[in-house]
Amino acid sequence: MPQNKKLNEAPERPGQIDSAGGLDMGILPSLMGYMLRQAQLFVYQDFYQTLAAEQIRPPQFSICEVVSRNPGIRPSDVATAIGVKRANLVPLVAALEERGYLSRASASTDRRAQSLHLTEEGESRLAHWRSLILPHEERLAEKLGPNGKGELVALLHSLVKG
Amino acid sequence: MPQNKKLNEAPERPGQIDSAGGLDMGILPSLMGYMLRQAQLFVYQDFYQTLAAEQIRPPQFSICEVVSRNPGIRPSDVATAIGVKRANLVPLVAALEERGYLSRASASTDRRAQSLHLTEEGESRLAHWRSLILPHEERLAEKLGPNGKGELVALLHSLVKG
Repeated sequence: MPQNKKLNEAPERPGQIDSAGGLDMGILPSLMGYMLRQAQLFVYQDFYQTLAAEQIRPPQFSICEVVSRNPGIRPSDVATAIGVKRANLVPLVAALEERGYLSRASASTDRRAQSLHLTEEGESRLAHWRSLILPHEERLAEKLGPNGKGELVALLHSLVKG
Repeated sequence: MPQNKKLNEAPERPGQIDSAGGLDMGILPSLMGYMLRQAQLFVYQDFYQTLAAEQIRPPQFSICEVVSRNPGIRPSDVATAIGVKRANLVPLVAALEERGYLSRASASTDRRAQSLHLTEEGESRLAHWRSLILPHEERLAEKLGPNGKGELVALLHSLVKG
């Protein structure tokens, strides 16, 4: 494992929402921006706990999922696709390569361009991660009541649509 | 303005959701974790554009909102409240102090502990930021249809509730 600060540091934890801690949170709990950030941190925290033994971060799962579905994709296209800055993608990809899950090759048409592939071991890990992530999502979805997850995901799609 | 890398670097941009770019995104668009991250990046990007002239980041608005409502609060309590790591809070607070919006004082009971207050100028800026943020939220909410924002915020509250 590379000694990369970004990879090794503890993830951010969600804050508080209402006045449970005796604080007045002002207009923050009514803002989509604030609540989306808190919900994202909350789900990520559960993700880290669920996949603790796998030492994998959410964007690394996303990288593997996209590379698996689009073999030979360039790193810059992965970065754009999942919304991670190129500079932040590099150490995440390097760590996956070092663990033998992902390989980089020069593209045949342009030797400066790299193409990414999952290894057989990488595909096998990805399948295992999926088998952990889907129950983690379903467990959280129970907090939203019947069809709550479907409604939430549909609203998020509407929000980000161009 | 302090030369702080974290404050000066460009924000991350949202990625893509469906196969618009010709990529197969696999199971990512069906995951709450992935979609919450994309929606958060999307709303933050609009926030940056809306408040570009103010040179303010979402967590700095949250800091000012919490300090305004809870005068004398300690930095560590602000960090916990809004879900920002203490190490990441320090430069954000320092930049607000440098611009004259926020003051730090030693607490009367414990001189090592700091207490935070907004200055008069800080309160005035905060009121201005609120007057920009509320229309930015309403403009985005239009994408969600009638009562869509209410439903989204309620679902997010249910998700993060203990």
